[in-house]
Amino acid sequence: MRIALDAMGGDFAPAVPVAGAVEALADLPESSEILLVGRTKDIESALAKAGGPKKGLRIVEAPEVVEMGDKPLAAIRSKPNSSIAVGLNLHKRGEADAFISAGNTGAVMAASTIMLRLHEGVDRPAIGTAFPTGQKPVLVLDGGANVDCSPRELFGFARLGAVYARDVLGRPQPNVGLLNIGEEPEKGNLAAKEAYQLLNGATQFRFIGNIEGGDVLSGKCDVVVCDGFTGNVVLKFYESVARLFKELFGRELDASVLESAGVKKAFRVLDYSEYGGAPLLGVRGVSIICHGRSSARAIKNAIRVAVQSVQNNLSDHVGAEFASSASHKAAV
Amino acid sequence: MRIALDAMGGDFAPAVPVAGAVEALADLPESSEILLVGRTKDIESALAKAGGPKKGLRIVEAPEVVEMGDKPLAAIRSKPNSSIAVGLNLHKRGEADAFISAGNTGAVMAASTIMLRLHEGVDRPAIGTAFPTGQKPVLVLDGGANVDCSPRELFGFARLGAVYARDVLGRPQPNVGLLNIGEEPEKGNLAAKEAYQLLNGATQFRFIGNIEGGDVLSGKCDVVVCDGFTGNVVLKFYESVARLFKELFGRELDASVLESAGVKKAFRVLDYSEYGGAPLLGVRGVSIICHGRSSARAIKNAIRVAVQSVQNNLSDHVGAEFASSASHKAAV
Repeated sequence: MRIALDAMGGDFAPAVPVAGAVEALADLPESSEILLVGRTKDIESALAKAGGPKKGLRIVEAPEVVEMGDKPLAAIRSKPNSSIAVGLNLHKRGEADAFISAGNTGAVMAASTIMLRLHEGVDRPAIGTAFPTGQKPVLVLDGGANVDCSPRELFGFARLGAVYARDVLGRPQPNVGLLNIGEEPEKGNLAAKEAYQLLNGATQFRFIGNIEGGDVLSGKCDVVVCDGFTGNVVLKFYESVARLFKELFGRELDASVLESAGVKKAFRVLDYSEYGGAPLLGVRGVSIICHGRSSARAIKNAIRVAVQSVQNNLSDHVGAEFASSASHKAAV
Repeated sequence: MRIALDAMGGDFAPAVPVAGAVEALADLPESSEILLVGRTKDIESALAKAGGPKKGLRIVEAPEVVEMGDKPLAAIRSKPNSSIAVGLNLHKRGEADAFISAGNTGAVMAASTIMLRLHEGVDRPAIGTAFPTGQKPVLVLDGGANVDCSPRELFGFARLGAVYARDVLGRPQPNVGLLNIGEEPEKGNLAAKEAYQLLNGATQFRFIGNIEGGDVLSGKCDVVVCDGFTGNVVLKFYESVARLFKELFGRELDASVLESAGVKKAFRVLDYSEYGGAPLLGVRGVSIICHGRSSARAIKNAIRVAVQSVQNNLSDHVGAEFASSASHKAAV
C-alpha cells in the first residue's frame, strides 16, 4: 500500500507531517510506503531532524506550495505543481492508494473533487468528522464542504456516512440521525423537514429520526447528518469547549491533579488528534483532510484512517451504493 | 414591581417555580410582588412545603395547564385560562411588569407574540440565550424561535441583542459578531452573506464581522447572531458537553477531587441555572422563557433577569430602537 502525504500542508509543515509519517511507519502493513510530497530539500531537512531517512518513506518532489490564505480555486489553477496537486495526481494515476493533507482545506476539497471526480450518483462530496464522545466517536457530516444543502444532498450525506461508518468505524448496522431542533418529523428548517421524509424511506441504514443538539454525543447515533454550515459551526464550537474546560480546570486545580492519569485520560477523550483526519466522502478514491493545527500524532492517526479506508475498499463501496441508485434512476 | 410567574410551567411544577419564587424574595426591590399563576390548590400545597405563605407572594388562579407535549397554537386556543394565558394577560393589562415561564417553550413564544404583540418595526421575535464562558456570558440569538431566517431578520436579531446587552448585561458598547464558517465577508450560506452586508453598515452597535464556532466562547463578542436552527443546535449541544465532561471526570477523578472547591467552581461556570431564563426579545413587554428542567435557582435567576429588564426599561428601548427605523422606512 502507498499513501501520498502532503508534506507541505498544515501550520507546522514540513516538520509535523514528516514526524507523523515516521511515527506511523511502525503500524503500517508490510511493504507499505508513505510518499512525502513537497519540496525535497525542506523534507530532507525535516527528515534529518526526525531521525534520518527510513525504509518505507519516499520523497516525491513538488516545487509549489498552496498557502493557508490562498483562494482555493485560484491556487489550484495557478500552482499546478503544488504538493496538493502532485499528491492527488499520484493517487489518481494509481501510484498511491490514498492522499492526506493538513493544508488549505478549501483547496484540498476543491482539488480532490476536480481531480479525483465524484462517484456517479453523488451530488456533493461531504466532510465526515469524527466527534469524540464518552464512548465511541460519532461521525458528523457534512463538516463544512457544503453550506446551503438540499434535502436530496442531506440524504446523500446519510448514505456516504453510513458506508464510512461500516467500512472504517466498524459499525455493521449504523444508526443515522438527522440533526434538528426537535424530534417530531415536522420540526426544523425547510431542508430538514423534506430530508426527514427521504431518510425515513431509506433501506441502506437504520434511520432513527430527528435528533437534537444535545443528542449528538449521547451514543444514540453512529452517523449524524446536517448541512455543512451547522456541522462546521458545531465542530469548531466543540473544539473550543474542550479548550475552555482545560482553561477552567487549569485555573482551579492543583498541578498534581491536572497531571494525574485520570484527568489526562478525560482530556484525551476530547482530543481531536486521537481521531485523525476527516475523509472527503463521495470522491473516487481516498482523500483525508486534516486540521491545519494537526500534531504528528494526528497525522499518524490520519494515516491509519487512510489505511483502513483502502483496506476496506471504502471508495468501491461508496461507488456501489450510489451506482445502484444511479441505474435505478436511469431505469425509471 | 410585580412579576407574573407561571407556577405550572416546567418539569417539576409547581414545586420548583414556587421554591424559586421563595428564594428570589430576599433580593427583590422593596414592595415588589411575585404573582404565582396557576391552580390555587396545587400552589398552596407547594407553598406549604416551601415554608408557608410569604409576604410578597400572591396566588392568581388559572385553572388550565398547557402540557409540555401540547401543540403550541392549539393549546393557546383551547386553553384560554391556562397559567400562560392568564399570566400574560396580567402583564398585558399592566397588572404585572413581566412574565416568566418554564413551560412549553413553543406555547410561551406563540402566546407572548400573539398577546403582547411585537414592537413596530420588529419582523420576528428572537430568544436571547446567555452562554456561559470563562469570563462574562455571551448572548447568542436566535436560540430557536425562527428556523429559516432572512438577512433582514438576522440584522433585526443583532439590534435586539445589542439593546439587551446594554440594558441587562451591562455592556455599554456591545460587540456583535455574525456566526459563520469563516471570517471573510463572502463566506457562509446565502442568508449569512447578505446579513454581513446589512450588519456592516450598522451604527447602533460595533459589528466585528464574521466569527466561527470556535469564537463564540472566546470573549470577542457580547452578542452572537445566527438563525434559530443553528442557535438551538449549538445551545443544546453545549449543555450536553457540560454533562459529558461531568461524566468523564466523574469516572476518572477521586470523590475528594470532584468535591473540591476548585472543581465545583469550574463546573458552576458551565451551569446554565446560574444565568436564569432567556428573554423573548421584540415583544412589547418582558417575557422570559426558562428551560423545562429549570431548578429553583434557575427560576430565581430568571426573576432577577426580569427585574433588571423592567428596571432598565428594556421594552421601551427595544421599541425606540425599531421605531426610529420604522419611521425612517415610512419617510423613505
